[in-house]
Order: sequence, then structure tokens, then C-alpha cells
Amino acid sequence: MASESGKLWGGRFVGAVDPIMEKFNASITYDRQLWEVDVQGSKAYSRGLEKAGLLTKAEMDQILHGLDKVAEEWAQGTFKLNPNDEDIHTANERRLKELIGETAGKLHTGRSRNDQVVTDLRLWMRQTCSTLSGLLWELIRTMVDRAEAECDVLFPGYTHLQRAQPIRWSHWILSHAVALTRDSERLLEVRKRIDVLPLGSGAIAGNPLGVDRELLRAGGGGWATWLGERRPFPVLQPSPASSHPQELSFRAITLNSMDATSERDFVAEFLFWASLCMTHLSRMAEDLILYGTKEFSFVQLSDAYSTGSSLMPQKKNPDSLELIRSKAGRVFGRCAGLLMTLKGLPSTYNKDLQEDKEAVFEVSDTMSAVLQVATGVISTLQIHRENMGQALSPDMLATDLAYYLVRKGMPFRQAHEASGKAVFMAETKGVALNQLSLQELQTISPLFLSDVNHVWDYGHSVEQYGALGGTARSSVDWQIRQVRALLRAQQA
Amino acid sequence: MASESGKLWGGRFVGAVDPIMEKFNASITYDRQLWEVDVQGSKAYSRGLEKAGLLTKAEMDQILHGLDKVAEEWAQGTFKLNPNDEDIHTANERRLKELIGETAGKLHTGRSRNDQVVTDLRLWMRQTCSTLSGLLWELIRTMVDRAEAECDVLFPGYTHLQRAQPIRWSHWILSHAVALTRDSERLLEVRKRIDVLPLGSGAIAGNPLGVDRELLRAGGGGWATWLGERRPFPVLQPSPASSHPQELSFRAITLNSMDATSERDFVAEFLFWASLCMTHLSRMAEDLILYGTKEFSFVQLSDAYSTGSSLMPQKKNPDSLELIRSKAGRVFGRCAGLLMTLKGLPSTYNKDLQEDKEAVFEVSDTMSAVLQVATGVISTLQIHRENMGQALSPDMLATDLAYYLVRKGMPFRQAHEASGKAVFMAETKGVALNQLSLQELQTISPLFLSDVNHVWDYGHSVEQYGALGGTARSSVDWQIRQVRALLRAQQA
Amino acid sequence: MASESGKLWGGRFVGAVDPIMEKFNASITYDRQLWEVDVQGSKAYSRGLEKAGLLTKAEMDQILHGLDKVAEEWAQGTFKLNPNDEDIHTANERRLKELIGETAGKLHTGRSRNDQVVTDLRLWMRQTCSTLSGLLWELIRTMVDRAEAECDVLFPGYTHLQRAQPIRWSHWILSHAVALTRDSERLLEVRKRIDVLPLGSGAIAGNPLGVDRELLRAGGGGWATWLGERRPFPVLQPSPASSHPQELSFRAITLNSMDATSERDFVAEFLFWASLCMTHLSRMAEDLILYGTKEFSFVQLSDAYSTGSSLMPQKKNPDSLELIRSKAGRVFGRCAGLLMTLKGLPSTYNKDLQEDKEAVFEVSDTMSAVLQVATGVISTLQIHRENMGQALSPDMLATDLAYYLVRKGMPFRQAHEASGKAVFMAETKGVALNQLSLQELQTISPLFLSDVNHVWDYGHSVEQYGALGGTARSSVDWQIRQVRALLRAQQA
Amino acid sequence: MASESGKLWGGRFVGAVDPIMEKFNASITYDRQLWEVDVQGSKAYSRGLEKAGLLTKAEMDQILHGLDKVAEEWAQGTFKLNPNDEDIHTANERRLKELIGETAGKLHTGRSRNDQVVTDLRLWMRQTCSTLSGLLWELIRTMVDRAEAECDVLFPGYTHLQRAQPIRWSHWILSHAVALTRDSERLLEVRKRIDVLPLGSGAIAGNPLGVDRELLRAGGGGWATWLGERRPFPVLQPSPASSHPQELSFRAITLNSMDATSERDFVAEFLFWASLCMTHLSRMAEDLILYGTKEFSFVQLSDAYSTGSSLMPQKKNPDSLELIRSKAGRVFGRCAGLLMTLKGLPSTYNKDLQEDKEAVFEVSDTMSAVLQVATGVISTLQIHRENMGQALSPDMLATDLAYYLVRKGMPFRQAHEASGKAVFMAETKGVALNQLSLQELQTISPLFLSDVNHVWDYGHSVEQYGALGGTARSSVDWQIRQVRALLRAQQA
Repeated sequence: MASESGKLWGGRFVGAVDPIMEKFNASITYDRQLWEVDVQGSKAYSRGLEKAGLLTKAEMDQILHGLDKVAEEWAQGTFKLNPNDEDIHTANERRLKELIGETAGKLHTGRSRNDQVVTDLRLWMRQTCSTLSGLLWELIRTMVDRAEAECDVLFPGYTHLQRAQPIRWSHWILSHAVALTRDSERLLEVRKRIDVLPLGSGAIAGNPLGVDRELLRAGGGGWATWLGERRPFPVLQPSPASSHPQELSFRAITLNSMDATSERDFVAEFLFWASLCMTHLSRMAEDLILYGTKEFSFVQLSDAYSTGSSLMPQKKNPDSLELIRSKAGRVFGRCAGLLMTLKGLPSTYNKDLQEDKEAVFEVSDTMSAVLQVATGVISTLQIHRENMGQALSPDMLATDLAYYLVRKGMPFRQAHEASGKAVFMAETKGVALNQLSLQELQTISPLFLSDVNHVWDYGHSVEQYGALGGTARSSVDWQIRQVRALLRAQQA
Repeated sequence: MASESGKLWGGRFVGAVDPIMEKFNASITYDRQLWEVDVQGSKAYSRGLEKAGLLTKAEMDQILHGLDKVAEEWAQGTFKLNPNDEDIHTANERRLKELIGETAGKLHTGRSRNDQVVTDLRLWMRQTCSTLSGLLWELIRTMVDRAEAECDVLFPGYTHLQRAQPIRWSHWILSHAVALTRDSERLLEVRKRIDVLPLGSGAIAGNPLGVDRELLRAGGGGWATWLGERRPFPVLQPSPASSHPQELSFRAITLNSMDATSERDFVAEFLFWASLCMTHLSRMAEDLILYGTKEFSFVQLSDAYSTGSSLMPQKKNPDSLELIRSKAGRVFGRCAGLLMTLKGLPSTYNKDLQEDKEAVFEVSDTMSAVLQVATGVISTLQIHRENMGQALSPDMLATDLAYYLVRKGMPFRQAHEASGKAVFMAETKGVALNQLSLQELQTISPLFLSDVNHVWDYGHSVEQYGALGGTARSSVDWQIRQVRALLRAQQA
Repeated sequence: MASESGKLWGGRFVGAVDPIMEKFNASITYDRQLWEVDVQGSKAYSRGLEKAGLLTKAEMDQILHGLDKVAEEWAQGTFKLNPNDEDIHTANERRLKELIGETAGKLHTGRSRNDQVVTDLRLWMRQTCSTLSGLLWELIRTMVDRAEAECDVLFPGYTHLQRAQPIRWSHWILSHAVALTRDSERLLEVRKRIDVLPLGSGAIAGNPLGVDRELLRAGGGGWATWLGERRPFPVLQPSPASSHPQELSFRAITLNSMDATSERDFVAEFLFWASLCMTHLSRMAEDLILYGTKEFSFVQLSDAYSTGSSLMPQKKNPDSLELIRSKAGRVFGRCAGLLMTLKGLPSTYNKDLQEDKEAVFEVSDTMSAVLQVATGVISTLQIHRENMGQALSPDMLATDLAYYLVRKGMPFRQAHEASGKAVFMAETKGVALNQLSLQELQTISPLFLSDVNHVWDYGHSVEQYGALGGTARSSVDWQIRQVRALLRAQQA
Repeated sequence: MASESGKLWGGRFVGAVDPIMEKFNASITYDRQLWEVDVQGSKAYSRGLEKAGLLTKAEMDQILHGLDKVAEEWAQGTFKLNPNDEDIHTANERRLKELIGETAGKLHTGRSRNDQVVTDLRLWMRQTCSTLSGLLWELIRTMVDRAEAECDVLFPGYTHLQRAQPIRWSHWILSHAVALTRDSERLLEVRKRIDVLPLGSGAIAGNPLGVDRELLRAGGGGWATWLGERRPFPVLQPSPASSHPQELSFRAITLNSMDATSERDFVAEFLFWASLCMTHLSRMAEDLILYGTKEFSFVQLSDAYSTGSSLMPQKKNPDSLELIRSKAGRVFGRCAGLLMTLKGLPSTYNKDLQEDKEAVFEVSDTMSAVLQVATGVISTLQIHRENMGQALSPDMLATDLAYYLVRKGMPFRQAHEASGKAVFMAETKGVALNQLSLQELQTISPLFLSDVNHVWDYGHSVEQYGALGGTARSSVDWQIRQVRALLRAQQA
């Protein structure tokens, strides 16, 4: 009883076409970003078709030439979209046909948009990962350089935001840099799983026309071994995407056509990678926002990364750091959104998967901006050494006082208690911990001798922490060397 | 040692301005959507300033006139952004100054962008809520109309996706419509909390210049009582945003300036409202996708809401429904992102809050499209009554068989067991449940008599469920009346 | 070829029963918490069956008596679970049968675990909402009492964590209390939607045996109007759950049996309510953690809400506040989890819905603890008035300096700029803003006169903010009155 | 004015101790699960202290012996918790002191609960990862075995849940198995990053007493090179946790003490690993639930993994699969919760981090159960070959019909269109696609010849898809070999 026109059920009129549905369905407004990789994938595929005898050499050349022309139009901003170009694949093939005629209709032989779009996206993300790795390394490098240059600056280390023990400023910088090295390690792993070719999977069942997927993968140059199966040619190292733009050069091919066209693990992994990295940056931002308050006054942001108030003339606000902190939410939201979209989805391609691209594009842009701004902030931040030094207080040496007793042979638990008594005594008397007299200390333990004075030296305190990973100079130097070695290894 | 130029730390060069930071910080690319409400808020504020004696009548008129001109430029697409227009507030005030000169500088007196932006956003969202309510009601109405028209169609009801009991097709439609009535109820509650005026809160401490916030709220016409405090004039009912566009007409004013400028509950609530509504629509979409498979063949989507395959000529895919299902992820991702951004934020305004607007805009657009597409789908869907009827099978009456025995006096637990034995007997014999002979049934229980035949009538079965909320005709009619009454009440 | 024993496919041996599956499937380990409401629901249902003629009076009395005995065993801790008691419903009915024999088998007539469990959960959550409302009101009351008592204390207000303007300490307290009043308002709305009876919906199609759902709802006393449909008796106000524990006393009945048994909106709403409330508390906790640092030194936590360090004797850490802050994540995680579970689920009951209860139980417990600990923290917190006062600095009056000029007639934008010049001049000269001489100020604007001295009084500054919602004494008093009126209204 | 007793502010009475706070703060109810690894870590640390000269050999032996006794008590269930045992570390050290006296007080020398707890958690999770890897491999193996055994079964492949192309049942199984191999690959990467030792980081600044962290790491046997720094002894391969339980045998040590004690990347990664793995399993579960409906009737779950209905005697519900699907939400909720807790947290240890353990424990338990139940389901599932075959329909060969024309030289786009016309013609005539006569086909294209009959063979159709990854027999065999090779490589 329901008719196509839908008049019966009281809804708005719907004819053969609902313009809102068309807009809802179309992806061209954002997937046009894929124009370059779409052309790149199509060129490789046309070479594959030629090898498989489905295109003549002349047809292939015609297609390759046409595709180059399409790319040129995009690059020069002269590509004109038609209203019917619902996605980038449709747009490019439509234009190719206008340029070279019916031969264009041979390009899609055995291919589906299902394997095409995921090939495009992997190509795009592979390049993005390389870009983001570079930006991340630059941030880490900047931090390590700074840690090296300012290694003599001491300031309070906090736990629970309460003053805990004196540490080197460089130790703080490195604590964040080390976290970021895990992000760059993970990004390489994500890239590794992106770098797998799905082309040749068709819509669901695979490719029926003898297209050689290893050839597509390697771009014409040879064969890879896939987990020890013998192959005619030695394994190709994946070339960087940019060096031979005409070759796809993937690390491997996907194993199963149904999985290949519908899994978005690599997208989820990328979004989670970004989420965890942003968590790190949000924590660093939080620290710097605190250190930049009037109350802490340890650091001052460059004007380039601060903004003023429309109302309060004296204000200089750390907007850059607040935005970095806030983006952790946005980025994770995209990750959460994708996971929810994937949950419980039936096998193989469903249109739900179209949600992947906007998430990837937004998060890529955000990460690029955040990493660059963070590098700018760190590289231009001023520190107030004097304030940092003045914030060190004798009570932060209470643990050292306990260690003093430990070194005299007292079990740590007793020493901890004795030092606690000294802290209490000082508080009660209203003096600093280091102003207790030897006599007073000796009422707590006879192990206190005049050499207890050596405890009250912040520089001496930090130098105790010489075990690897501690805040002593030697250990900080070791950390710097380790992080630099890590970066070299990751860039290899 | 760190210098402003940042050369020392190895980062990229940073001068007084970092263009990436400027772009990172600016919100004009998206908050320009607020142009109309920004002008609306400024007009109200200038009237408030005049009443407070901070503007002369002539100055106010000059500002009002200038703001109208600004609005006109936006409306006509002739407003030109400057590179320094970092947000809509800056842009509008800059342009106002160009149009009317120094008097423009009086508009921001006692106001901060902190209270301005949240006023704008509330105005914008109040209107959006009204629009979305309308679209939601239209969807529900379409569903109820359809339920009424097709009330005689029976088909299988499923639990755990296993055939459970015969139900009316209208009962299924109403199960989703009823869920949506909760969404429309909640949206009204969200709107109620949006409809509170923060203007006059300044940056943090409030407004120091005698601006009358009740006047700002009511737009000049009177005063509201706020929880029983006596006020000179009777409570104003909030006017619809569009009827007196020159008046703000909020339901109430915010209580505390610090909270007013930094709480984003109304945004979080809106995003969660959308998330829960999308969850409902995702479940309805899932049902319809299943019912539209070859295997179920209960419904067929209109061509207007389906798409074909680039590879497989026979395919007609329910893209509209898949997109609806998928958007549940995207929308919830925005909600999750905002909550994470808010978590642990220090009091009052922090730049982190700038993340609110893109979430609101994207989710509003998504909901608008989804609701319209869903209405289109429902109003044009074809049902295959015959297939629906043929999918009813006697085993779905096993519960009725048990009820038969209950009516004869057998305790339900025993009756359930007896009916289970009959199901097993039929399976073992390879016949349908209703093909067991009376003799066979009587080996299970002597309570079976010849009137057991009445059990095997699907129409009779559904009519048993006459308790309110059940699938009997009378109850379905009651549901339709209830939902229509609810809609009327909500629209009042 | 796959056999029941599963030997063929290399998996572990599986006989008729897989003990891991049994444990995976069972919910008794947590839904036993529902024992009381399960009995309550069953008692009401047996009364409904009696009214419908499906139980004799004697049978009903037998069942009611037996159920009381079951409840007594639970209350006394003597109820013994059997290995086959997979859920609380099974356990209670099994025990009832042991106690009263075959009549127990009549209790489930026309009922399904699908409508039973959701009735139980609603009863449980309705009580929980009342409890949590009480705890929330107590927290707000404590805050308001404190705000009233300490209204004369001034300290810095921060935006972007930079000192912004002087405010009253009470204004800060109220900013958080006001946020919590929205939570208590929302909780009442959530409770309202919980307070709807699904019993009588059966498994999917409704109740076929003439059970009167209005009777079940009201517990025997009468009928409610449901949106204007005429009913024989006047609307019953829902009684508090505890006053007549033998009556269900719901506000309304569910409209559609398919929706009633499978919608979990009320769970999602409750989890989101808790998430948003926790977001507020996380922000308050963050503030107090900062204010309790050595650097701020505005507040000091009671020892009862602090803990020490196993290593550092001087440490006193704000663990209570950190835990409150952290629980925002946990609680929201449960909300996210449930939404994801619901996404894309087919209509009606699916076992996936079993995930609802652990989320509800955990979040309820967490909220109860958090609200009580927060009340304890606030009620025992010490403030350091002197430190608060000393943290006020003349640059925080730069806005007031601009307002001074505004009052002399200068447009605000120019005044803002002039005040900014004064700030810069003071910084350059290395003096406080209020130490600039009149002559110096007059080089910036001739409008500066000797009465500019009045600007430099913090008490005078806050008193300017007399508009409603501001930090002036009168406005703070107004806020206190408003919040107290709100609480009275909510408790009504 | 606020007093410790809190009477003033109207809150409940609070003395020196608030029992709700104590319970809120304590972690012993769940972290007792760490008892074994806590003892293991303490034993290694006491050996480290002895090497550093902080314990005599005799003291060390006394401690080691005492710790063994503590472990024995836990293992035998005789360990008695005291009310003051707030966490497992406190409990174990308290008991050690009872057993061996004051020497116990030396064990915590230079150690903090900050580095202790994260060492414990890493030890526990390392073992858990190994266990889960084993379960995951068993599931994959079961699937691959089944794919091999049932390779000759054909059934419809679906995209958008619409019948797309004939595929092998094994191809479907492998599509899910291949997804799971990525999960097992990722789990190894997560384990690699768990396998790093933080012990010796103290509370924040490091270890000041000459404890050799490389010795702690390797358990006494030697040194590792850390990224190429020369070390006295060759790199140790990490031993499996169980083989030398007295040795910690970590792969590496953490680089920075501040980061080491407060980063929870490894927890976040683990939770996300589980979330993505659950997403895969939720999709497989969804497929099987669909395939098990009456309408599809492709598979039937073993009774061991199904449950009945309390109301409907004929029902057999796929509860196992529904629970698997639903757990995707729960698990991801924990991941979301942790990320939100971490967002914006200040540097180093904050009590917020205590939230990590319950998430890890719950998710570990869930994954263990899910993987075992999934293995049970797959290994006992029955398939209905006949139904599968009958569900193949000629319209699923429309793509093959187009390929037929492509092989005759027609460009694919035209062939796709021609095949589409044939589909339309068949629909119009009300016949199956393969029932169109040659004459009828030739009206569409003269390229159709009598050999078009070969198209209508499903076995022939699948064999076309011989490119790697396709559904042809040879390709499926290749997939099986590849997955098995992958498993071997991962288990190495």
C-alpha cells in the first residue's frame, strides 16, 4: 500500500530522488582529498590489467595518459565536479571517460569500489603516517635538545601535585619525551599494518580475471615472499610513497578478500594511536599550564602561543596549551565513534564503513597542527630558573633524611618514621626542616651526627639518584643518549 | 636561555606569530554560523547598556542600526572576513566599528567573549532544538499514520532474532515510534535548560555596571519570577525565537557568573540526547535492513533510498539505513569527546571549551539529515504482506498451546513443559506443531481436547494480547491514541 | 559434519554443557542484588493474577506467604543458591516451589523474564535514585551553608588558570553548587522515566490472560489517567517505594510491549546523568587539588581525606579528590559501554541487554561513595584566608581601571587599551599597577584623576559586580536564596 | 572556621577517620589478585638490595624466606587481611614483619609503592597476555581446521546484507580468522611494551642507593644492551614468566623514573587491543546470529551454547553469541574510561591511576571467557549445507555474466550495463536470470553465445576467483597455509 511517492503515510513528498538522501549518501565533499591516491591506484591497476591481458598496451597507455591529465586538473584546481559525482572514484572515472572515451570503461574490470576505496585510504594514510612521524620526531628532538641544554636547572618534582623531591628540569622534559617515543614506535607499527594492499579483492569474492596482486603490490618490479612461500623474486623493501609515485610498493597483500574490503583495523588503530599520543600531550600541556600560573611562575609562554582577553587587559592566556589539552577529547571521540560504528556490523562491506574517512582526515589534521604547535611552544618557552630554585624547600629532603639514617644502618621503615617525626617537630616549632638543631634531631635518633648537614643540599640530593632512569646528571645524560638512539633506530 | 625566536632548541623558527598557531586558535571557520545570533545578542545587550545609562539613546540607535547592517551583509553573502577576525564576535565588532566608528567600542562594555559566546550558542541551539523537534514529530507522525493504516498485517515477532510470537506489523512500527516519543520528551527538557540566559556574567565575576539581566532576558517586556522571588511583573512565557527576533526571551537567567561562562551541560546533554536518539534509529535501521534481505523479504526500500553496486548489476543496497545505523557512532563519538574534554578542567572559562561548537554543529546537521531520511524511508517503504504471513509458523504458537492448558487449569510451569514436549514430538516426527493429532497431544496431557484447534489461528493468537501495550487490535489502537496525545502535549 | 562433541574441529572437548559458557551466561553473581525487588514484583503480579481469575485467593495467599519466606531468607542471609540458579528470577521461583509446591508454577503465567527483569531493575533504580538525590542534596546544602558562613573571604578568580578578577570564596563554592543543582534536577527527570511499569508485557507480544496492568501499576488502589484517557479512578500520585512496599505504585505503564522489554533508555540516561555529575565533581576536585598545592596554599584537606606516602615522610596527598576526579572516567566508561552495546541491536529482547545491570550497580555504588566523600571533604576543608587575601594583586584590577575610564565616558575598547598601556607601563617600570603615579597614568589618559585610588580596593571591586549572578555580597546572598529555594522545590 | 570535625558546615560528622573514605581509598578488595607478582617483585628487589650492600646475605635470606611464607599463605588461602591493609603491598609487608620482625622494614628501602605497583601490574599482565595469546591461537586454529575440512561448501556471500556473489563457506570462516591474526599480532606488540621493568624508579626521582636496575631486570643472570649501549654481558632473551619464577626477566628497563611510575600506556593499549578484538568477534557473532535465524537457516548452534525461554517452549536462543557481541561494549567502555581518567592528568603519580587495575582485571576475565566460548561455539556449530546451496540464486551470477562479456572484449562498464539489462529483463518476465533464452540475451548484446550456459554454475563461478585472497579453492588453500604460517611465526 506504500507507494513510491509516499503520499499515503504523511511524510514529505518523495519522488524518484530525495535530494537530502543524495547529500546524505555522497562522500565527494570530503573524499575528494583522495584524488591523488585514487589516480595512483588506478594507474597501477591499469598496468595490472595489461599484464593480465585485459588491456592492450595501447589501451593501457591511453588510460595512463588520461589519468595523468585527470591528476593535472586536480593539481591545478581546474577539475570540475558534476552533480552526479557522488564520490571521488566516480568523479575520476567519469572525467577519464570524457577525456579518452569508451576505453575508460575497461579500467574498472574486476575492481569494485569496495577494494578501490580501501586501497586509496591506505595509500593516503601511509603518507600521513610518514608526515606525522616526522613531526613527532621533530618535537621529541626539540625536547631532548632542550633537556641537554638546561640540565643544570633544578626544581620541585611533584606527585599528587604535592612537592615531592628535587629533580632536574631536564628530567621533567625527558619524562614527556620518553612517552612520545612510545607514540612514535606505535605509529610505525600502525603504518606497517596500513602498508598492505587490498586491491584485487573485488567487491567480496576476489578478482576473477587473472590479475596478479603481487604485481600490483610491488608496482611492477618483482615479487615478495609472504611468510616464507617461495616467490620468483626476492622480497622488495617498500619504497617511500613519494620516491616512485607510479608504484604502489606495499609491504604485503591482504589475505582474504572479504576481510580486505571490510576491515578497518588500520583506521581504528590510527585513531587510537592519536588518542594515546594526545593523552600524553594533554598531560604535558596540563603541567605547563600549571607551571605558567602566577602561583608556580616556573615558565612563561612565548607571545606567539598566548592570547589576550577581550575584557581583562592584564591577561595572557596559554590558549595553545589549552587547545592541545582539549583536542585529546576530540580525537578520542573519533576513535570511540568508529569503534561503535564497527560494533556488531555484519561481515564484508556495509555503507556504515563510509564513516571512516572523515574521522581519519580530521584526526590527521588535528595531529599535524598539535605536533607543530607543541614544538613551537617547547622551543620558545622561557623558564624562570630563579623561581624554580626558590620553590625547593627543605621538607622535600625528608626522604633524604630517612636515607641518611638508612645509610647509618637503620631499617628504612624506622628511618621513614624518624624523618616523619622530624618533619612534625619542625612544623610544630614553625621552622624549616633544615633548621632543626642537631640536638633536636638527636632526640629522635642518636644516629644523627653533624654530617647530617650534607643532606640539606639540593644539588647533592639529585645526584644521589644515579640508578638508570633517575634524576642524577649521569642518568639524565644516559636518557638523552637513549632517546637519540631510539630516534635514529626509528628513522632507519 | 630560551629566546622568543626559539632558535636555540632546534624547533622550527618562530617569530612573533606562528601561522599554524593562528589557524589552530581561530574559530571563525566554523563559528561564523553564529553570525545571526551574535548580532541578536549584541542588539539586546546594547539595549541593556542604554537602560543602564552606559549608552545614550542615540548611541544605542547607532549601534542597532549598524548591527542590522552587519546582519544584512551576512545574509546577502557580502560580509568580508579579515585575516585578523579570529572569531565571529571579533569579526562583527570590527565590522561594526568600520560602519559606525568609535561608538562601536562601547558595545563590549562589561561584556566578555566568555558570556557572549555562550549566549550565542544557546540562542543557536534553542532554535536548532525547535527545528529538530519538528522533524522528530514528523517522523513519529508518519510512523503512527502508517501503523494505523496497516494494522491488519501480521508477521513474526522475534526475540534473540528467533521467531517468537505472531504480532501485528503496526505493533513493530509503534515499538519504534514509542521509543522516539521519549526522545522528543527529552529534547524538550534539554531545550528548557538551554533556554537560560548567561549574558551579563562578564568574564568571571559578573557585570559591574548596573546592567539589568532580567531586562536582557525578557527583551524589554517585563520580569520573570525566579523560583518565587517577587518580581515587579508577571512571568513571561518564552516566545519562540523567531516570533520576536529582536528579543532574547529566555526562560530564566543563570545563577552564578563563574558557572554560567564555563558550564557546557547543555551541550553535553544535547549530544547525549542525539546519541540516545541515534541508538533508537540504529535499531530500527537494523531491523529494516534484516527485513529487507532476500531471506526475510518483508520489506522493500524505495529506490530513492537505495543505491546500486559499481560491480554487481543485480544489487540494490539499503545505503540509507546503513548510514543511519552508522551515524550512531559518529554522534556518540562527539558526546564522548566533549565529556573527555570537560573532565578535570579547572573552574571557569578555559580555551578547551572552544571544542563545543564543532560538535554541536556537526551533530545538529547529522540529526537533521537522519530524521528527514528516516521519514522518507518509512513513508515510501513497501511491505510484502504475503511473505510476512507465510513466515508465521505453528511453532510460534507453542506459548499459546501452553496458555491453552493454563486455561484448562494446569499451572503454567507444567503447561510450558507440556508444550515443549509437543514441540519436541513434532520435530521428531518431522511435522509442523499443528499437525500433531489430538491423540498424540493427549499422550502429553489429557487436558487437550478438540478445541485445541482454535489455537492454530494467528489472528486469534494476536487478539489474545489485549492487555494494554499488547499486540491485540484494541491495544494497538490505544497505543496510537496515546502517542498522538503525547505529540499534542509535547507540541503545546 | 560438525558434531555436538566438537571433536572434529580441534577445539576443546564440549559435551552437553560447557562450564565456561554456564558461567558466562549466568547473572546470579550480580543480579542477586535484585532479590528484594524481584519478590516485590512477584507479589504484585500474583495479586494481578488473582484479580484476573488465574489464581484463587487461596493460591495467591500461598504464593504471597511463600514469597515473604523467600525474602526473609535473603534478608537473614540463609538463602542457599543452587548451581542451576542462573539468575535471581530462577532462584526465587525455584525456592518458592520448594516452599509451597506446584502452586509456585502458576506465578509465571503470562509473565516472561523479559518483562520481569526490567520491572525489577526499575524498582531497584527508582529507590537508588531517591537515595542518590538525598546524598546530592546534602552535598549541595553543605556547600551552600559554607558559602553563607564564609561570604566575606576574598581570593583570586582565575580564567585559563591565570589570575583574572577578585571574587568571593563563596562565589566559587556556589559556582560548583549551582552546577550540582542541575544534576539533581536531571536526576528527578531520570527517575520520572524510570518510574514506568513494564510488567504485563510478556516476552514480546503482551499479556494474553486479562491481567490488568493499571492494577499492577497502582498496586490495587485505583487507576491512573494516561494522557487524558478517561479512567475510572483519579490519578494516583506515585508513593515512595518504601512507604507501601507491597505496592508497586508506578507513575505510568509502558505503552508497547516490544519496546517495554527491550528499551534501556532509563539505564543509559542514568549512566549519563552520573557521567555529567562526575564531570562537575572532577572539575571541583581539580580546583581543590590546585588550591591545596604548596604554591596556591588556599585550602587544606582534613587528614581524614588525605593519605601519606610510603616513601616520603613529609607528604600529605589529596587522595580523596584525586579519586573523585578519576571516577569521572570509570563512570563515563560504563555509559559508553552500554551505548555501544545497544547500537544496532535488533528489536526486542536480546541477551546483549544483560550487560545493563553490572553497569548500574557499579555506577550506583560509585556515585554513593563519591557524593558522601565529597560532602566530607567540603565540610572539613580548612581555608587559609590570609593566603587567599595575599594572592590578590593589583593587576587583577586592570579591568576595574578600564571601567573607571568607562565611567568617565571613554568607550570600553579605548578604556581597555588604556588600561593595557598602564599594565605595560607598570611591568616595564617593575612596579605594581597601583604604584603608578597619577602623573604617569595621565600620560595615558587625561581622564585619570585622583579618585583613581578608589580602584585599588579589592572589597570595593567585588561589590561592583552587583548584577544578578555576580560576586557582590547582595548577589551572592541572592544565589544562596535561589539554590535553597531550588532544593526545597526539588524535594517537594 | 572549618574544623576537623566538620560540624560547622552541616555535613555528616567526620572524625579523624571517615569509614566511607577508607573504603573508597582502599584497593585491597581487587589488588589482592596481585599477591603472587607482588611477592615475586619483592624477592627480586631484596636480591637487588643485597647486591647494593643494603642488606646482608643473612637479611636477604630471611626476607626471601619470609616472602615465600607469605606466598604460601596466599596460595593456601590462609592469609588473613587486617582492616588496615589498604592494598596488597601494605598487606604483604605487614605480614612479612609479623613473620620475620624488623628486618622486614629494610625491604622498602629506596622503593615506593609507585614503582612497586606498576612492576606488579606489568608482571601480572605479561602473564595474562601469554594466556590470552594461547586462547586466541586456539580459536584461530579451530577456525582454520574447520575451514580446511569444509572447503567444498558454497553459500551466498553478502554485501550490505544483500546477496552478492557465491563464496566458499571456508572463505567466510577465514575472513574472520584473518582478522583475529591481526589481533594476535597486536597482542604480541602490547606484551612487548608491557615487558619493561619500572622497578628502581622510586616515587619520582629514581633510586638513590646504588640498586642495579639491570640486575633487577635480568634477575641476576647478566646485563642487557639497551639500544646499543655497551653492557658487560650479552643481551638476555626474556624468559617466560613461569620458567624461572624467581627471576623478573624483563626485556628492558624503563628510561625515566617520572614517566615509569605514572605512564599507563601499556594498560590503555591492552584495553584497546581487547576492544578491537571484541569488535571482530562481535561481527562474527552477528553473522552467526543471522545465519542461525529461521530465515537464513545456514547454521545451528550446539545446545551447549544456546538457552531456552522461560515463556516460549519452542525457543532456542543464541545467548552465547549475543553475549560475545555485547561484551564489545563493556570492554570498550573500560578503554574509554581509562583514557578519560588519564586525560589532562598532571605529571607523575596521582591517585587517579588506581583506576587502572579493575579495568585490567575485568577485561582480562572477559577476554578469557569470550575466547573460550567462541572456540566452543565454532567447534560445535552445525552447518546446513543443503540450505546453504539452495540459497544461491542465479542473480548472484550477474557479475559473472558481465565478466562473460568482458572476456568477449566488451569494456566492463558496458558489460555491467548489459548484465543489468538482463537482470531487469528477467525480473520483468518473472523468471530467474538463467532462464532467459539465448535469443533474449542476444537482444541485449550479440556477444552472447551458447557458451553463456557455463556461467550458470556456482562451482565454476567461485573457481574464477583465483587471484590470491579470492574464494577459489587454490586461494583458500593458500590462505590456510598463510594463517598457519603466521601462527607458527607468532608462537616462536
